[in-house]
Amino acid sequence: MTQQMPPLKKYAINGVDINALTKTINAIKCEPALSAFQFRARNTWLGGGLNHSTIQGFFGAGQEQARPASFTFKADEPPVLLGDDRGANPVEFVLHALAACLTTSIAYHAAARGIEIGSISSELEGDLDLRGFLGLADDVRKGYHHVRVKMHVASNAPADQLANLAKFSPVSDIVSNSLPVEIVVETH
Amino acid sequence: MTQQMPPLKKYAINGVDINALTKTINAIKCEPALSAFQFRARNTWLGGGLNHSTIQGFFGAGQEQARPASFTFKADEPPVLLGDDRGANPVEFVLHALAACLTTSIAYHAAARGIEIGSISSELEGDLDLRGFLGLADDVRKGYHHVRVKMHVASNAPADQLANLAKFSPVSDIVSNSLPVEIVVETH
Repeated sequence: MTQQMPPLKKYAINGVDINALTKTINAIKCEPALSAFQFRARNTWLGGGLNHSTIQGFFGAGQEQARPASFTFKADEPPVLLGDDRGANPVEFVLHALAACLTTSIAYHAAARGIEIGSISSELEGDLDLRGFLGLADDVRKGYHHVRVKMHVASNAPADQLANLAKFSPVSDIVSNSLPVEIVVETH
Repeated sequence: MTQQMPPLKKYAINGVDINALTKTINAIKCEPALSAFQFRARNTWLGGGLNHSTIQGFFGAGQEQARPASFTFKADEPPVLLGDDRGANPVEFVLHALAACLTTSIAYHAAARGIEIGSISSELEGDLDLRGFLGLADDVRKGYHHVRVKMHVASNAPADQLANLAKFSPVSDIVSNSLPVEIVVETH
Protein backbone atom coordinates (compact mmCIF):
# COMPACT_ATOMS: atom_id res chain seq x y z
CA MET A 1 0.00 0.00 0.00
CA THR A 2 1.52 3.30 -1.07
CA GLN A 3 1.02 6.21 1.31
CA GLN A 4 1.73 9.78 0.35
CA MET A 5 2.55 12.61 2.67
CA PRO A 6 -0.06 15.38 2.48
CA PRO A 7 1.07 18.54 0.66
CA LEU A 8 3.15 20.86 2.85
CA LYS A 9 1.20 23.68 4.43
CA LYS A 10 2.39 27.21 4.97
CA TYR A 11 3.44 27.87 8.56
CA ALA A 12 3.18 24.15 9.29
CA ILE A 13 5.11 22.25 11.96
CA ASN A 14 4.76 18.45 11.79
CA GLY A 15 2.25 18.98 8.96
CA VAL A 16 -0.03 20.93 11.36
CA ASP A 17 -1.05 24.42 10.21
CA ILE A 18 0.04 26.54 13.17
CA ASN A 19 -1.95 29.59 12.11
CA ALA A 20 -5.13 27.51 11.90
CA LEU A 21 -4.38 25.85 15.24
CA THR A 22 -3.87 29.22 16.93
CA LYS A 23 -7.10 30.53 15.39
CA THR A 24 -9.01 27.46 16.63
CA ILE A 25 -7.66 27.85 20.17
CA ASN A 26 -8.44 31.57 20.27
CA ALA A 27 -11.93 31.06 18.84
CA ILE A 28 -12.75 28.46 21.54
CA LYS A 29 -11.25 30.66 24.27
CA CYS A 30 -13.62 33.48 23.17
CA GLU A 31 -16.63 31.22 22.65
CA PRO A 32 -16.43 27.93 24.56
CA ALA A 33 -19.64 26.64 22.87
CA LEU A 34 -17.56 26.12 19.71
CA SER A 35 -15.77 23.27 21.49
CA ALA A 36 -18.84 20.95 21.46
CA PHE A 37 -18.36 18.10 18.97
CA GLN A 38 -20.54 15.11 18.21
CA PHE A 39 -19.22 12.22 16.13
CA ARG A 40 -21.48 9.51 14.69
CA ALA A 41 -21.50 6.07 13.13
CA ARG A 42 -24.11 3.72 11.67
CA ASN A 43 -23.65 -0.03 11.61
CA THR A 44 -25.43 -2.89 9.83
CA TRP A 45 -25.12 -6.58 10.62
CA LEU A 46 -24.29 -8.81 7.65
CA GLY A 47 -24.59 -12.20 9.44
CA GLY A 48 -22.34 -14.09 11.86
CA GLY A 49 -19.40 -11.94 12.97
CA LEU A 50 -19.56 -9.70 9.90
CA ASN A 51 -20.94 -6.14 9.95
CA HIS A 52 -20.07 -2.78 8.49
CA SER A 53 -20.10 0.82 9.65
CA THR A 54 -20.65 4.05 7.77
CA ILE A 55 -19.19 7.29 9.08
CA GLN A 56 -19.88 10.64 7.45
CA GLY A 57 -21.25 13.82 9.01
CA PHE A 58 -20.51 15.23 12.45
CA PHE A 59 -21.23 18.35 14.47
CA GLY A 60 -18.41 20.65 15.50
CA ALA A 61 -17.20 24.24 15.64
CA GLY A 62 -20.80 25.42 16.00
CA GLN A 63 -22.30 23.72 12.94
CA GLU A 64 -23.04 20.50 11.08
CA GLN A 65 -19.96 19.40 9.17
CA ALA A 66 -20.75 17.57 5.96
CA ARG A 67 -18.24 15.36 4.23
CA PRO A 68 -18.34 14.78 0.48
CA ALA A 69 -18.16 11.00 0.93
CA SER A 70 -18.55 8.50 3.73
CA PHE A 71 -15.98 6.17 5.23
CA THR A 72 -17.03 2.52 5.48
CA PHE A 73 -15.37 -0.24 7.48
CA LYS A 74 -16.13 -3.93 7.76
CA ALA A 75 -15.54 -5.81 10.99
CA ASP A 76 -15.41 -9.58 11.22
CA GLU A 77 -13.87 -12.27 13.42
CA PRO A 78 -11.07 -14.67 12.46
CA PRO A 79 -11.94 -18.37 11.95
CA VAL A 80 -10.78 -19.29 15.49
CA LEU A 81 -13.50 -16.90 16.70
CA LEU A 82 -16.03 -18.37 14.26
CA GLY A 83 -15.82 -15.65 11.60
CA ASP A 84 -14.48 -15.51 8.05
CA ASP A 85 -11.74 -12.89 8.60
CA ARG A 86 -13.28 -10.40 6.18
CA GLY A 87 -12.17 -7.49 8.36
CA ALA A 88 -10.25 -6.71 11.54
CA ASN A 89 -12.26 -7.54 14.64
CA PRO A 90 -13.77 -4.93 16.97
CA VAL A 91 -11.07 -5.09 19.66
CA GLU A 92 -8.39 -4.75 16.96
CA PHE A 93 -10.11 -1.56 15.78
CA VAL A 94 -9.75 -0.24 19.34
CA LEU A 95 -5.96 -0.65 19.04
CA HIS A 96 -5.99 1.21 15.69
CA ALA A 97 -8.05 4.03 17.21
CA LEU A 98 -5.70 4.26 20.19
CA ALA A 99 -2.52 4.21 18.09
CA ALA A 100 -3.88 6.81 15.68
CA CYS A 101 -4.99 9.11 18.50
CA LEU A 102 -1.74 8.92 20.48
CA THR A 103 0.22 9.66 17.29
CA THR A 104 -1.94 12.64 16.32
CA SER A 105 -1.88 13.97 19.88
CA ILE A 106 1.93 13.97 19.94
CA ALA A 107 2.16 15.54 16.45
CA TYR A 108 -0.36 18.32 17.19
CA HIS A 109 0.77 19.17 20.72
CA ALA A 110 4.42 19.11 19.68
CA ALA A 111 3.56 21.49 16.82
CA ALA A 112 1.81 23.85 19.24
CA ARG A 113 5.04 23.97 21.29
CA GLY A 114 7.35 24.36 18.30
CA ILE A 115 8.80 20.84 18.70
CA GLU A 116 9.63 19.23 15.38
CA ILE A 117 8.91 15.53 14.96
CA GLY A 118 10.68 13.50 12.27
CA SER A 119 8.74 10.24 12.55
CA ILE A 120 6.41 8.33 14.85
CA SER A 121 5.73 4.62 14.81
CA SER A 122 4.11 2.40 17.41
CA GLU A 123 3.33 -1.19 18.31
CA LEU A 124 0.33 -2.09 20.44
CA GLU A 125 -0.72 -5.24 22.26
CA GLY A 126 -4.03 -5.88 24.00
CA ASP A 127 -4.51 -8.90 26.29
CA LEU A 128 -7.95 -10.45 26.54
CA ASP A 129 -9.30 -13.52 28.33
CA LEU A 130 -12.08 -15.02 26.21
CA ARG A 131 -13.80 -16.50 29.28
CA GLY A 132 -15.18 -12.99 29.93
CA PHE A 133 -16.96 -12.71 26.58
CA LEU A 134 -18.16 -16.31 26.76
CA GLY A 135 -19.63 -15.76 30.24
CA LEU A 136 -17.58 -18.63 31.71
CA ALA A 137 -16.07 -16.68 34.64
CA ASP A 138 -17.73 -13.79 36.45
CA ASP A 139 -14.43 -12.43 37.76
CA VAL A 140 -12.90 -12.13 34.26
CA ARG A 141 -13.58 -8.89 32.41
CA LYS A 142 -14.99 -9.05 28.89
CA GLY A 143 -12.62 -6.58 27.24
CA TYR A 144 -8.86 -6.17 27.35
CA HIS A 145 -7.40 -6.45 30.84
CA HIS A 146 -4.11 -4.78 29.80
CA VAL A 147 -2.96 -2.71 26.82
CA ARG A 148 0.67 -1.88 26.08
CA VAL A 149 1.84 0.79 23.63
CA LYS A 150 5.45 1.25 22.55
CA MET A 151 6.04 4.46 20.59
CA HIS A 152 9.21 5.37 18.68
CA VAL A 153 9.57 9.08 17.99
CA ALA A 154 12.33 10.83 16.07
CA SER A 155 12.71 14.16 17.86
CA ASN A 156 15.16 16.23 19.85
CA ALA A 157 12.59 16.57 22.64
CA PRO A 158 13.00 14.32 25.70
CA ALA A 159 10.93 11.13 25.75
CA ASP A 160 9.09 12.07 28.95
CA GLN A 161 7.94 15.38 27.44
CA LEU A 162 6.56 13.52 24.41
CA ALA A 163 4.88 10.97 26.70
CA ASN A 164 3.16 13.88 28.46
CA LEU A 165 1.89 15.18 25.10
CA ALA A 166 0.41 11.72 24.37
CA LYS A 167 -1.71 12.16 27.52
CA PHE A 168 -3.87 14.68 25.63
CA SER A 169 -5.21 11.78 23.50
CA PRO A 170 -9.03 11.51 23.56
CA VAL A 171 -8.99 7.77 22.76
CA SER A 172 -6.43 7.12 25.49
CA ASP A 173 -8.83 8.87 27.89
CA ILE A 174 -11.81 6.85 26.56
CA VAL A 175 -9.98 3.54 27.00
CA SER A 176 -8.21 4.34 30.27
CA ASN A 177 -11.13 5.88 32.13
CA SER A 178 -14.74 4.88 32.59
CA LEU A 179 -17.31 6.50 30.30
CA PRO A 180 -21.11 6.44 30.43
CA VAL A 181 -22.41 4.45 27.43
CA GLU A 182 -26.19 4.43 27.05
CA ILE A 183 -27.42 1.46 25.01
CA VAL A 184 -31.06 1.25 23.94
CA VAL A 185 -32.31 -1.85 22.09
CA GLU A 186 -35.57 -1.73 20.12
CA THR A 187 -37.08 -4.83 18.57
CA HIS A 188 -39.39 -5.11 15.59
CA MET B 1 -20.49 -0.44 -1.69
CA THR B 2 -21.96 -3.91 -2.19
CA GLN B 3 -21.89 -6.21 0.83
CA GLN B 4 -22.54 -9.93 0.55
CA MET B 5 -23.76 -12.25 3.27
CA PRO B 6 -21.19 -14.97 4.06
CA PRO B 7 -22.10 -18.47 2.82
CA LEU B 8 -24.51 -20.34 5.09
CA LYS B 9 -22.89 -22.76 7.50
CA LYS B 10 -24.23 -26.10 8.59
CA TYR B 11 -25.85 -26.00 12.03
CA ALA B 12 -25.63 -22.21 12.00
CA ILE B 13 -27.91 -19.83 13.86
CA ASN B 14 -27.48 -16.15 12.95
CA GLY B 15 -24.57 -17.23 10.72
CA VAL B 16 -22.73 -18.56 13.81
CA ASP B 17 -21.61 -22.21 13.61
CA ILE B 18 -23.18 -23.66 16.77
CA ASN B 19 -21.09 -26.85 16.70
CA ALA B 20 -17.90 -24.81 16.55
CA LEU B 21 -19.14 -22.47 19.30
CA THR B 22 -19.96 -25.42 21.57
CA LYS B 23 -16.55 -26.98 20.87
CA THR B 24 -14.81 -23.69 21.71
CA ILE B 25 -16.70 -23.32 24.99
CA ASN B 26 -16.01 -26.93 26.01
CA ALA B 27 -12.33 -26.68 25.09
CA ILE B 28 -11.91 -23.55 27.26
CA LYS B 29 -13.84 -25.14 30.14
CA CYS B 30 -11.39 -28.10 30.05
CA GLU B 31 -8.29 -25.94 29.55
CA PRO B 32 -8.75 -22.31 30.65
CA ALA B 33 -5.30 -21.36 29.25
CA LEU B 34 -6.83 -21.57 25.77
CA SER B 35 -8.83 -18.43 26.58
CA ALA B 36 -5.77 -16.12 26.55
CA PHE B 37 -5.79 -13.88 23.46
CA GLN B 38 -3.46 -11.08 22.44
CA PHE B 39 -4.39 -8.72 19.60
CA ARG B 40 -1.89 -6.33 17.99
CA ALA B 41 -1.57 -3.30 15.76
CA ARG B 42 1.28 -1.28 14.27
CA ASN B 43 0.90 2.37 13.34
CA THR B 44 3.00 4.80 11.28
CA TRP B 45 2.61 8.57 11.22
CA LEU B 46 2.31 10.11 7.74
CA GLY B 47 2.38 13.79 8.78
CA GLY B 48 -0.19 16.13 10.37
CA GLY B 49 -3.30 14.21 11.43
CA LEU B 50 -2.68 11.36 8.97
CA ASN B 51 -1.40 7.93 9.99
CA HIS B 52 -2.09 4.32 9.16
CA SER B 53 -2.29 1.06 11.06
CA THR B 54 -1.51 -2.49 10.02
CA ILE B 55 -3.22 -5.41 11.75
CA GLN B 56 -2.32 -9.01 11.01
CA GLY B 57 -1.28 -11.78 13.41
CA PHE B 58 -2.57 -12.42 16.91
CA PHE B 59 -2.23 -15.03 19.63
CA GLY B 60 -5.22 -17.11 20.67
CA ALA B 61 -6.51 -20.60 21.39
CA GLY B 62 -3.03 -21.61 22.54
CA GLN B 63 -1.03 -20.59 19.47
CA GLU B 64 0.04 -17.82 17.12
CA GLN B 65 -2.67 -17.21 14.56
CA ALA B 66 -1.36 -16.09 11.17
CA ARG B 67 -3.52 -14.35 8.63
CA PRO B 68 -2.82 -14.58 4.91
CA ALA B 69 -3.01 -10.78 4.54
CA SER B 70 -3.01 -7.72 6.74
CA PHE B 71 -5.77 -5.19 7.29
CA THR B 72 -4.70 -1.56 6.92
CA PHE B 73 -6.60 1.54 8.00
CA LYS B 74 -5.85 5.20 7.61
CA ALA B 75 -6.90 7.73 10.21
CA ASP B 76 -7.00 11.48 9.62
CA GLU B 77 -8.81 14.54 10.91
CA PRO B 78 -11.39 16.63 9.04
CA PRO B 79 -10.39 20.15 7.90
CA VAL B 80 -12.08 21.79 10.92
CA LEU B 81 -9.62 19.76 13.03
CA LEU B 82 -6.72 20.72 10.76
CA GLY B 83 -6.54 17.50 8.74
CA ASP B 84 -7.31 16.57 5.15
CA ASP B 85 -10.13 14.08 5.80
CA ARG B 86 -8.29 11.15 4.25
CA GLY B 87 -9.79 8.76 6.78
CA ALA B 88 -12.19 8.64 9.71
CA ASN B 89 -10.70 10.14 12.84
CA PRO B 90 -9.61 8.13 15.89
CA VAL B 91 -12.70 8.81 18.01
CA GLU B 92 -14.93 7.86 15.07
CA PHE B 93 -13.09 4.52 14.87
CA VAL B 94 -14.03 3.98 18.53
CA LEU B 95 -17.71 4.25 17.55
CA HIS B 96 -17.20 1.73 14.73
CA ALA B 97 -15.46 -0.68 17.11
CA LEU B 98 -18.25 -0.31 19.67
CA ALA B 99 -21.06 -0.76 17.12
CA ALA B 100 -19.37 -3.79 15.57
CA CYS B 101 -18.78 -5.41 18.95
CA LEU B 102 -22.29 -4.86 20.31
CA THR B 103 -23.72 -6.30 17.08
CA THR B 104 -21.50 -9.39 17.13
CA SER B 105 -22.14 -9.93 20.84
CA ILE B 106 -25.91 -9.98 20.29
CA ALA B 107 -25.61 -12.27 17.22
CA TYR B 108 -23.28 -14.78 18.94
CA HIS B 109 -24.97 -14.88 22.33
CA ALA B 110 -28.41 -15.10 20.75
CA ALA B 111 -27.15 -18.02 18.62
CA ALA B 112 -25.83 -19.78 21.74
CA ARG B 113 -29.35 -19.52 23.24
CA GLY B 114 -31.18 -20.58 20.05
CA ILE B 115 -32.59 -17.07 19.49
CA GLU B 116 -32.87 -16.22 15.80
CA ILE B 117 -32.04 -12.68 14.71
CA GLY B 118 -33.32 -11.30 11.41
CA SER B 119 -31.40 -8.03 11.28
CA ILE B 120 -29.43 -5.63 13.47
CA SER B 121 -28.68 -2.01 12.75
CA SER B 122 -27.46 0.74 15.03
CA GLU B 123 -26.77 4.46 15.27
CA LEU B 124 -24.12 5.84 17.59
CA GLU B 125 -23.33 9.32 18.86
CA GLY B 126 -20.32 10.39 20.92
CA ASP B 127 -20.15 13.82 22.56
CA LEU B 128 -16.76 15.45 23.01
CA ASP B 129 -15.67 18.85 24.30
CA LEU B 130 -12.57 19.91 22.37
CA ARG B 131 -11.33 22.03 25.30
CA GLY B 132 -10.13 18.78 26.87
CA PHE B 133 -7.86 17.82 23.99
CA LEU B 134 -6.63 21.40 23.60
CA GLY B 135 -5.74 21.62 27.29
CA LEU B 136 -7.95 24.70 27.77
CA ALA B 137 -9.93 23.40 30.77
CA ASP B 138 -8.61 21.00 33.41
CA ASP B 139 -12.11 19.88 34.43
CA VAL B 140 -13.07 18.81 30.88
CA ARG B 141 -12.16 15.28 29.90
CA LYS B 142 -10.22 14.70 26.69
CA GLY B 143 -12.34 11.90 25.24
CA TYR B 144 -16.08 11.46 24.85
CA HIS B 145 -18.07 12.47 27.91
CA HIS B 146 -21.17 10.55 26.74
CA VAL B 147 -21.86 7.88 24.13
CA ARG B 148 -25.36 6.85 23.03
CA VAL B 149 -26.17 3.70 21.05
CA LYS B 150 -29.57 2.94 19.52
CA MET B 151 -29.91 -0.62 18.23
CA HIS B 152 -32.75 -1.96 16.08
CA VAL B 153 -33.05 -5.75 16.16
CA ALA B 154 -35.51 -7.92 14.23
CA SER B 155 -36.22 -10.79 16.63
CA ASN B 156 -38.99 -12.42 18.61
CA ALA B 157 -36.90 -12.12 21.77
CA PRO B 158 -37.75 -9.27 24.17
CA ALA B 159 -35.66 -6.11 23.88
CA ASP B 160 -34.37 -6.32 27.46
CA GLN B 161 -33.05 -9.86 26.87
CA LEU B 162 -31.17 -8.65 23.78
CA ALA B 163 -29.84 -5.65 25.71
CA ASN B 164 -28.46 -8.09 28.29
CA LEU B 165 -26.70 -10.06 25.53
CA ALA B 166 -25.08 -6.81 24.34
CA LYS B 167 -23.48 -6.54 27.80
CA PHE B 168 -21.08 -9.35 26.84
CA SER B 169 -19.39 -6.95 24.39
CA PRO B 170 -15.63 -6.62 25.00
CA VAL B 171 -15.48 -3.12 23.42
CA SER B 172 -18.42 -1.94 25.51
CA ASP B 173 -16.45 -3.11 28.58
CA ILE B 174 -13.28 -1.37 27.34
CA VAL B 175 -15.08 1.93 26.76
CA SER B 176 -17.36 1.83 29.81
CA ASN B 177 -14.80 0.75 32.40
CA SER B 178 -11.29 1.89 33.20
CA LEU B 179 -8.44 -0.14 31.74
CA PRO B 180 -4.69 0.01 32.44
CA VAL B 181 -2.91 1.34 29.36
CA GLU B 182 0.89 1.35 29.59
CA ILE B 183 2.48 3.83 27.18
CA VAL B 184 6.24 3.87 26.66
CA VAL B 185 7.83 6.53 24.42
CA GLU B 186 11.35 6.04 23.07
CA THR B 187 13.15 8.77 21.13
CA HIS B 188 15.92 8.43 18.59
